[in-house]
Amino acid sequence: MELKSVAVILFLLRVPAATSGRPLAAGKPDPDDAAATARWLVAQNSWGVLSTISSDLGGSPFGNVVSFSDGVPGEGCGIPYFYLTTLDPTARDALTDGRSSFTLSEFPLGSCGKIDPENPTCAKLTLTGKLKLVDSQSSEAEFAQDALFTKHREMKDWPKNHNFQIFKLEIEDIFLIDWFGGPKPLSPAQYLNHGKELSVI
Amino acid sequence: MELKSVAVILFLLRVPAATSGRPLAAGKPDPDDAAATARWLVAQNSWGVLSTISSDLGGSPFGNVVSFSDGVPGEGCGIPYFYLTTLDPTARDALTDGRSSFTLSEFPLGSCGKIDPENPTCAKLTLTGKLKLVDSQSSEAEFAQDALFTKHREMKDWPKNHNFQIFKLEIEDIFLIDWFGGPKPLSPAQYLNHGKELSVI
Repeated sequence: MELKSVAVILFLLRVPAATSGRPLAAGKPDPDDAAATARWLVAQNSWGVLSTISSDLGGSPFGNVVSFSDGVPGEGCGIPYFYLTTLDPTARDALTDGRSSFTLSEFPLGSCGKIDPENPTCAKLTLTGKLKLVDSQSSEAEFAQDALFTKHREMKDWPKNHNFQIFKLEIEDIFLIDWFGGPKPLSPAQYLNHGKELSVI
Repeated sequence: MELKSVAVILFLLRVPAATSGRPLAAGKPDPDDAAATARWLVAQNSWGVLSTISSDLGGSPFGNVVSFSDGVPGEGCGIPYFYLTTLDPTARDALTDGRSSFTLSEFPLGSCGKIDPENPTCAKLTLTGKLKLVDSQSSEAEFAQDALFTKHREMKDWPKNHNFQIFKLEIEDIFLIDWFGGPKPLSPAQYLNHGKELSVI
């Protein structure tokens, strides 16, 4: 085994933040590992709030509750995919102005216990970027549809005449708070490449 | 008893939507009653996503997970109050551009059961308006602090040097989906006056 491999394994096994007064929930990454924590939030949640610039409301931000998936369980890619109809303002807004953010909380997962939802140790994530329609004929659309319909069984039966289409968030900025001390530095590349380290062993 | 009073009582007692194939959760208002449903979502939830226009991210919408309260339990006024610090982008954004929305879902309350979070019968609410600082010397600040600290016990112990301040959303538009058929028409006045009908009997 090469030194590089040992380093990767030590990285993966390192102990939780010694400063913690709060036990970590089973499966929750160490808060020091920003990429792992962000990817865990995306993998575990099934819904979040997708915010767009509202064309109906004079450019106000408009947050909408939506379901999403980044992959079938255990095989998430970190990119949130959505199944939206232009009967709803979010998809209409995105087609006019793609600027968007997608927000998730650890709180509904139940692992924050009695900690307040706004307490920084109850992790929260905002992915900001552009909300884009995925070409329905692409292999990405096939991946995304499988990801969505696996996590959201009823989607495949939603009304055909509502013309639901697959959208994705192209991530440009990441805001993650999972501990005291302010947002964790985390680039889109670090976030999207998380987990791929294993393939170099 | 005047006819007006009888009408009010009949209005309050009317039976749930006959079209429903889904039993309503205990305490959940009839989806036909938009004001009651919106106020119930605000009263029951303890957190939501507050979206602002991000000055850090080129005017993108930025959704942030925040705790809130509209009053002590059973005495909510419908106005969401927040306890924010300018160490966080949301408060900074609001002081530059007040345009904001606050989004809540029925899903984390547990009453949607196995229904998908994006299914229209799992209620969702977006209040859009202006996010404003509440004058700390006002009686409104006293009401809001009581509302916040009662629902969020740990807030009173949050670090003094973070300068948390009370903000509120001045509601200008309401987007509520709680059933099939698109958003329910609901004005801010109808929403805010809900429950006050009883006082005219």
